[in-house]
Amino acid sequence: MALGKHLLLELMDCNNELLNDIEYLRKTLSEVATQIGATVIKDSFYQFTPQGVSGVVIIAESHLSIHTWPEFNYAAVDVFTCGEVIKPVDAVKPLTEKLRAKNTKYVELDRGILTENKVEVS
Amino acid sequence: MALGKHLLLELMDCNNELLNDIEYLRKTLSEVATQIGATVIKDSFYQFTPQGVSGVVIIAESHLSIHTWPEFNYAAVDVFTCGEVIKPVDAVKPLTEKLRAKNTKYVELDRGILTENKVEVS
Repeated sequence: MALGKHLLLELMDCNNELLNDIEYLRKTLSEVATQIGATVIKDSFYQFTPQGVSGVVIIAESHLSIHTWPEFNYAAVDVFTCGEVIKPVDAVKPLTEKLRAKNTKYVELDRGILTENKVEVS
Repeated sequence: MALGKHLLLELMDCNNELLNDIEYLRKTLSEVATQIGATVIKDSFYQFTPQGVSGVVIIAESHLSIHTWPEFNYAAVDVFTCGEVIKPVDAVKPLTEKLRAKNTKYVELDRGILTENKVEVS
């Protein structure tokens, strides 16, 4: 049994204006968190100059994060959840659509594998 | 050229009291961020009941995050940095020591591979 699932999502060829819109990204990440069944606790976002946004939404089940490079139409998103109910991969489609990404790639990793009451790594 | 480096660190057999001490974890993550050469912008931490802490430090170069399971003496830490100067792997030793982890494992992944002005994924 893994304690957590960690999705690393690469969003490419996105709309670069959206990637620089901190309030849009804050709203989007929270909405997607709720959509996949997570409970949003709080968020923390930061607008870089001249461009780019970093943000994190802490959820009861761990976190979602985003870092954007509007100059490359690229965003790196993480969806880290614990428990058996939420599937981080459910976030791929809505995030792809909301950032208008034309290309996406992702990988999902297990975090904290439990064996005989000890934690081991996959 | 990768835009970012992402270290996924598994800290096992840690001191479980430290894993439940939100102020210690906040201080530790910020200190380690500074130690590896990152610039701390802000942090956001949350204490769970009955135990466990989630926290993120946003740095100018991306983020550090931690999720702790004191009941399993386990913490999942991420160190995501962009730029060529900072080496996320430099965070492994200080984090291991500060959380008194007896076992650690980690993997480092590239995020956002640039090729011919386009972003591709490794």
